[in-house]
Formats: sequence, C-alpha cells, structure tokens
Amino acid sequence: MKIYDNPGRDQWKSLCQRAKATENKQVEETVTAILKRVERDGDRALSELASEIEKRDVTGGFKVEESEFEAAASRISASLKEAIEVAVKNISSFHQAQLPREIIVETFPGVTCLQRPVAIEKVGIYIPGGTAPLFSTVLMLALPARIAGCSKVVMCTPCDSEGHVADAVLYAARRCGVSEVFKIGGAQAIGAMAYGTETVPAVNKIFGPGNRYVTTAKQLVGSTTVAIDMPAGPSEVMIVADSTSCPDYVAADLLSQCEHGSDSQGMVICDTMELALEIESATKRQAAMLPREEYIAKSLSNSRIIVLPNRSDMLAFANRYGAEHLILSIDEPMVAASQITAAGSIFIGNYSPESAGDYASGTNHTLPTSGWAHSYSGVNIDSFMRKMTIQKLTRRGLEGLGNTIIKMAEAEGLAAHANAVSIRLENGN
Amino acid sequence: MKIYDNPGRDQWKSLCQRAKATENKQVEETVTAILKRVERDGDRALSELASEIEKRDVTGGFKVEESEFEAAASRISASLKEAIEVAVKNISSFHQAQLPREIIVETFPGVTCLQRPVAIEKVGIYIPGGTAPLFSTVLMLALPARIAGCSKVVMCTPCDSEGHVADAVLYAARRCGVSEVFKIGGAQAIGAMAYGTETVPAVNKIFGPGNRYVTTAKQLVGSTTVAIDMPAGPSEVMIVADSTSCPDYVAADLLSQCEHGSDSQGMVICDTMELALEIESATKRQAAMLPREEYIAKSLSNSRIIVLPNRSDMLAFANRYGAEHLILSIDEPMVAASQITAAGSIFIGNYSPESAGDYASGTNHTLPTSGWAHSYSGVNIDSFMRKMTIQKLTRRGLEGLGNTIIKMAEAEGLAAHANAVSIRLENGN
Repeated sequence: MKIYDNPGRDQWKSLCQRAKATENKQVEETVTAILKRVERDGDRALSELASEIEKRDVTGGFKVEESEFEAAASRISASLKEAIEVAVKNISSFHQAQLPREIIVETFPGVTCLQRPVAIEKVGIYIPGGTAPLFSTVLMLALPARIAGCSKVVMCTPCDSEGHVADAVLYAARRCGVSEVFKIGGAQAIGAMAYGTETVPAVNKIFGPGNRYVTTAKQLVGSTTVAIDMPAGPSEVMIVADSTSCPDYVAADLLSQCEHGSDSQGMVICDTMELALEIESATKRQAAMLPREEYIAKSLSNSRIIVLPNRSDMLAFANRYGAEHLILSIDEPMVAASQITAAGSIFIGNYSPESAGDYASGTNHTLPTSGWAHSYSGVNIDSFMRKMTIQKLTRRGLEGLGNTIIKMAEAEGLAAHANAVSIRLENGN
Repeated sequence: MKIYDNPGRDQWKSLCQRAKATENKQVEETVTAILKRVERDGDRALSELASEIEKRDVTGGFKVEESEFEAAASRISASLKEAIEVAVKNISSFHQAQLPREIIVETFPGVTCLQRPVAIEKVGIYIPGGTAPLFSTVLMLALPARIAGCSKVVMCTPCDSEGHVADAVLYAARRCGVSEVFKIGGAQAIGAMAYGTETVPAVNKIFGPGNRYVTTAKQLVGSTTVAIDMPAGPSEVMIVADSTSCPDYVAADLLSQCEHGSDSQGMVICDTMELALEIESATKRQAAMLPREEYIAKSLSNSRIIVLPNRSDMLAFANRYGAEHLILSIDEPMVAASQITAAGSIFIGNYSPESAGDYASGTNHTLPTSGWAHSYSGVNIDSFMRKMTIQKLTRRGLEGLGNTIIKMAEAEGLAAHANAVSIRLENGN
C-alpha cells in the first residue's frame, strides 16, 4: 500500500486509473465458441460442456429439484434464516419505495403523452460459485425483480463435482421467488439464458457477477441478444477520512474490500500524513488477524492512501475517481455527499461500514465499478423495468399540432411523414 | 408486401424475426483501426481521417464557430422556427414531468437509505448527415440532457465537402443548449467523444443514430469506455387495425416508416382478409405519389400484413414482436394499450400518427428497435441521469443491524466484512 503525499493535479488522472483488464483474445475466442455451441445445440451443448470443462456427468439434468431446495433449507441454521429475513425486509422496503409511477401530461390541447413503467418479463441471474457462496447477491437481484413484477426469474449457478449448490444460495433463491435454478456455470450459463435451450428459458436481461469467462460472455450476448445489467470490473472502495474518522474503522472497511479478491482496490483519501500513517498501521495490524491472507495481500498492493491538502480537493478527487463504494468518514458527511456527483453508493459517517450495504441495510450491492459510476446507476428497481411511452391525439389535437409536424417533416425531406398527418386532416370526419 | 392469412402460432417466431445484421468483420476491423488512431493521436488522427475518408481539408478546425450558428439561424424560415418552438415546448414539458425525485426510507430503526438522482455530467450526441438533416433528433436528445441537468452536451455531425452542416441542425443545436458542435462524422466522431482529443471533450455517455460504422463504433466503445444509449437496428412500425381503423391512415403510417431507409420494416396486423386487401391497395395508391421511391419499394418488400383471427391474438402477436412504434388503430385502444407489455412507443387511435411522436407531441423518438423493446426503454430523462444510493446508520442503527450483517458475512466466509461491524460495536463510544 503506497502513500502519496499531496500529488499534483496532473497526477490525478493516473491515480484514478484502474487496472485495465488485459485484452485476452484467447478468452474471447473460447467464449465465442462456447456461445455458438449453446445457441446451436442447446441442452446437448450444455451436457457436453459440463463433461468437457467440469468433468461432470449431468444425465440427471440441470434443474435443481424441489427435494434439493428442501434439503438445503433444512440445513440452514435458524439464526441465519433470521438474518436473511431482516435483510429481505430492508432490501424489499427500499426497492419497493423506488417503484416508478405512471406519468401523464397533456403537452398540447388534445395531445396526451404517458410514460408507463412495465416490468421486464423474463430476467436471468448468474450467481458465481468460487470462493464464497454469494447468497446475498441472490437477495439483491431476485427481490427487486419480484418487486418490479418480472414474471419469470431464472437463475444459473455452478455446482460442485457432486452436483451440489451451496445451501444458502438455494435457500435464498427459494426465499426470494426465483422461478427455476439451473446448475450451469460459466459462459455456457450466459449462453443458455440468452438463447434459451430445451430446458433453460431465454430471458430478456441478464444480471450478476462472474469470472472473466462469464463477464466476456455477458458482454458478447449483450451487444447482440439480451440486455445486461452493467459492465463488470473488480470491486473497489474509496474512504474519505479526516480528523473525525477513526483509523481502525477506515482500516476495517479497506480490508473488507480487499478480501473480495486479489484484484480489488482500496483507496483512502485523507488530509494529513499523520492520519495516513495511522490508517496504514491499523491496516497492517488488522490484516494480520484475518483469513483470506492471499487476496488481502494482493489487493493491498493495488491500494493507495492519498493525502490531499483540504476537503474540497478530497471531494474533487472522489468525484474524479467515481468509486463503486464511497465512505465519507468526515465532518458533516451529508453535506459532503451533496457535493458528490459520481459514486455507486455512499456510506455516511463512522457507523455505516460498506458491509451494511453489502448485506442488509436495504441498498443494492450490485454497483458500477471502474469509473462506470460516471455513467451508470447501480442495480435498482428501474433495472428490472422498461418505460414505454403512449400518446393519444384527438382529432382536435392533430388539427392543432398538424402544421408543426408537417413543417418539420418537410424540412427533413420526409414527405410520407407529412402525408400521414395531411391525409387525416383532409378527411372530413 | 406479403399478406399472411392466419399463420399458425408455430410461424409467429419467424414472422417476428427482423433482418439480422450480417456480421461484417471488415466493418469491425476498419472501425477498430479508426478508434485506435483517434485514441492514440487525438486531433491529428481526426484531421488525417477527414482527409483520407472525406477528402476534406480541416485546417480550420472541427468546431462550429459562432458565426456559422448565426448564419444558419438567419436562413431558417420564421414558420420553421415557430414549428420548432412548439415541438421544444411539448418535448420539454413531457420530459420535465419525468424528472425523478429523491427517495428516502428508514428501512430499520437508525438505518436510512436514500436514492438520489444525479445528472450524467458530460453527454455526447451524434447526428448523422446522409439523406435527411435530422434536426428533430437534436431536439430529442439535447432537450432532455439539459432538463436532466447535464453540464456539458457535445455534438458531432458530418458536414459536406465545403464544411457546411445543415442549417436546421445547427439552429436546433443552439436552440436546445448544445455546448459545442464538431464537424466530425463516422466512427471517428464516436472515438473522439469516447476518448477525448485536444479539441473534443471526452463524454460519459453517447447517444444518437448512425450508419453501420457509427453503430459498430458505439458498440465497441460501449463495452470498454463510455455508456451508450441502446443497441441500434433499422426503424420499424407495427399497426394493429380492425374495422374501426381507416385503411388510408394505416397505409400512410406504414409508408411514413418505409421512407426512413431501405431496411425499415412495416408490419400490419388486422383481423380480416378484406381489411388486409384494402390496406394493401391504399398503400400501393399512396406509394405512387411519394418521393423516396427507392427506399419505399425496398422497405415494402420487407413489410408484412398478417391476418389473425381475433383481438387477443393480435395483441399477443404485438407483444411477441415488441415493435419500436406500435399504432393501435382498433376499438378501445387504451384498453388494448394496457395489455401491451413490449413496445417502444404506443400510438392510440386514428389521430395519432407515428409522425406526431417523431416530431412534436412530446414523447421521445429514440426508441428500441429489433425487439429490444422487451428489455430497453426508449430514451427518457433517466437516460441522462444516474441514481446513487446513500446510507446512514447511526450507532444505534448499527447495533440493531450488526448481528444480521455479521451472520451473513460469516455465512459467505467473509471475515473482514464481519470485522468491519464488530470493531465498531466493540468500541465503547
């Protein structure tokens, strides 16, 4: 972890730079081939790929059976179930409050325009296997999908060599109203949900994190076949700290980010070198007591403490960076938040650790990384809906607006557009 | 234009299929090379490309000068200015009404979650040159950008060999608050706005239609560098007609779609063969009187009239197709609209031609094509904003929610996430 003491503005650009995903033609070619096979051969491709890549026999099919959900639920402790209920309640109430309303405006006499929100019919969720069973992501994606009113919520997730999916993932899927869960991992899962197979329904939008193969597959199908939630990148946190912050808390938040994976990035912005050193030593002290040492060591090597001369520079730097998670451990943090123009999610003051938002406060944890906060929202209720417009002109409305339309159509050289109005106006009734 | 009489459900899939863009490796390679040059060489690449591709000398620079705006405005007729004012007013009032509000929920005692809408700072608009000067698209993109509060709205558009941009395009740009207009066309314009050059500022999101090179460039930068509005495809209209419709109006709407370009598609769904034949003959009659014959002839060859036995099948087919523009010229059209789950924009009854929405009613005309209406909204005020979440936990809030977070973090094997909570709760104050 390197400390930068008052870097000049000319260095900000490079200090804001994320590790660029190295272009990997090999990954793209592999994924393209997998997608083509799934599109062409459906279930047969999925079976063959499971046996080729995972060395797994799937004659029993991919779909999680009722008995597996029941067995998983029976193995979840009462206290974890209770915790999940609290999180479900908070996430639901925050996302419920986001439901958009229909908008109706009479823009001109006899011309009424509506904007009507409608749920996306079928959505797909990918939950990675790997190092941690991310059942919290099931909550973050399936609950808003259900609240939005999506009629089908399909999930794909890899299983182990015996065909087991983590209990908490299955329990959360059932609890949050996922329609069907399929034991399919990797690029082939994305292909299955994008194109549909005999077993897996095609969806309209795919959500969820994943490894390189998964995110490459999402990117490829996203430009041709289905919508995707947002571009993927390694997780990151920025903590802005001043004399009102507690170095131990800053260190703890930094480390909770760093344990996600070896490419995570933690950034601390503070206003004195003294505080920077205190945070650095608290980080070292706490890191020594944590598991997942390897991830933490690697992530810390990507991480930075940057000392800036004053609050206004600190906030300007935060806006430039556009962090996925931005913790404001500074004086008057709500005032500071009102000056933030780019962040995925903001955490206010000393008692709002990132892990609150990761699990249970109610906000969504699927957030834009790598500076995409400058142009993308995190997942929210809108992510599961579309807004259609509707317009109704009365004859009087068209009479009033007709000349405007005809004039503009003619100026664009589009005579048939003009004719669609004049043919109606010329007609007597 | 082919008539399909009561096709079976098994044929619906193929009847809903759009012409697939033929994969063109050549276009992709050309565009990739152009983007790389613009990213690397900035303005120098833009100058060289203008001279190579457009055979145009740009020593005078790319930026439209104040005097050019003034000259353009002086050549626009008073009646066109008046028409533009009406459109500006209607588009503004409909998009103003869409401005989202901040949402605040206390999800749990001491845990407050906010969703705060913030404008995207810098947006870029591409306006094609080509066969028609699309100044209406300037209105549809620049007005909502300004209403959302984007601080910079940049526009690129090709010019002719003398360096002129269509008067109406310049007039509309100035009228709608575009910050700067650059005479740059093609993939290089998209590269300039994505990466930024010495002259053209880098933006956070790029909007607007374009030819194959432009849309390929948008797709390429969209997965790596900036957000884009939506995937592109040829324009299309579907008209659902019954005995309450007027065949002449249906034909006029169909033809106004068909004049857009040779790859446009018109679809008519009606409930009797008699009506189908009347619409067909009205279309032939009107087509003979319109300019842009070549586009219309080609588009009509992509177009279809489909006879279905009843209203419920007609609406089911419309939902399956997911039209960019859907005209409901049927009995009780608002009731029918409430059953529509996928369309870009819906036009109600006999006096709401598509051209009303294309120009002046107030709705946006940048809409999802090619079935993307199943997963995307048309451009609306949200397209120019992001929604950040903010959370504030009090100490009491964290005390109440702490165990839930710790329990879930532990179940995911993320000890540092749990530690970020417990270190705060263990600390006395």
